[in-house]
Amino acid sequence: MKLYDATFSGNGYKVRLALAHLAADYELVEVDILAGGSRTPRFLEKNPNGRIPVLELDDGSTLAESNAILFYLCEGTELVPDERFARAQVLQWMFFEQYSHEPYIATSRFLRQHREQTQEVADDLARRRAPGLAALEVMERHLSGRTYFVGERLTIADLALYAYTHVAPEGGFDLDGYPNVLRWLERVADRPVHVTMDQVPS
Amino acid sequence: MKLYDATFSGNGYKVRLALAHLAADYELVEVDILAGGSRTPRFLEKNPNGRIPVLELDDGSTLAESNAILFYLCEGTELVPDERFARAQVLQWMFFEQYSHEPYIATSRFLRQHREQTQEVADDLARRRAPGLAALEVMERHLSGRTYFVGERLTIADLALYAYTHVAPEGGFDLDGYPNVLRWLERVADRPVHVTMDQVPS
Repeated sequence: MKLYDATFSGNGYKVRLALAHLAADYELVEVDILAGGSRTPRFLEKNPNGRIPVLELDDGSTLAESNAILFYLCEGTELVPDERFARAQVLQWMFFEQYSHEPYIATSRFLRQHREQTQEVADDLARRRAPGLAALEVMERHLSGRTYFVGERLTIADLALYAYTHVAPEGGFDLDGYPNVLRWLERVADRPVHVTMDQVPS
Repeated sequence: MKLYDATFSGNGYKVRLALAHLAADYELVEVDILAGGSRTPRFLEKNPNGRIPVLELDDGSTLAESNAILFYLCEGTELVPDERFARAQVLQWMFFEQYSHEPYIATSRFLRQHREQTQEVADDLARRRAPGLAALEVMERHLSGRTYFVGERLTIADLALYAYTHVAPEGGFDLDGYPNVLRWLERVADRPVHVTMDQVPS
């Protein structure tokens, strides 16, 4: 298996984190997305939407979208519930992550770290602030009295949400006001198989 | 089963379309989202993220996120492939829909139909134009030589993408330049069980 990825990407990190939980061997192929590496004709054959991460199987078939990759890799393991409704709840939180969380919290981090800080970027960051805070508030309330997002056990919903939440302060989203979120982040990171964002296979 | 929905919503329509394919009975509960009906304390108990659609089962448990609801309802039917990789490809296109398509194509339609056309809204629409066109281009290329998005058969990936694509012109996205997309839209709508967006259960 090959993972086409940019190591600063939380979407890529989700997959690396899942692969660590599965103790799976894979080859990491770093793509220079800031220099257009995910928009070359060769890359677009792997993912017509021009984004990392992309998982390439040994037969050459490719799969895009971080959360679809998580589902593919982890279905049949304890990271994806067997029970149909619980499995759908896991997907609910993964769609929440991509629609209501990532475009605000992850994109703010990207804009602050990888773009010149012009007035246009400042306006863009300002527009992303309220929805980002709302996403954290939804997580904080849901985690009240719960240890994990679904079924009181670690699932790919937690891995998907962990990836950009644990670096939310890099996007300007301080987590001090979210004690349930902070405890949940510690719980996820406390697993012996956990890897950090910068721990990549050599 | 109850479906909390706003009938002009494509996200709700996805679920109504899937329920029609399944010939399932359900009660439609119209939520006045423009008047804050999805942000009341009572609704937030059903979906802490304050959005429709929400599916409520007879035991009172609730599921949010249109694409998670589609997966829940249709798993085990011919609308979701049994094969693991194909199932993940279906999810890939559903995450594409929520991340790269809906925020541009659906939101543009919403802004044009339900907001006063101020300069701020015009600027917002302008920002959403290029990514919306890019999403249509990705679909057009993928559908070249294909009848449906995954595995040459109708799946929930098609239903999810159909919902807002077929009304893309209402958001200012003319489809004349996308012949493969137009043929695929006809193919989806041509099923005898198909319902239109305004066909709702009485």
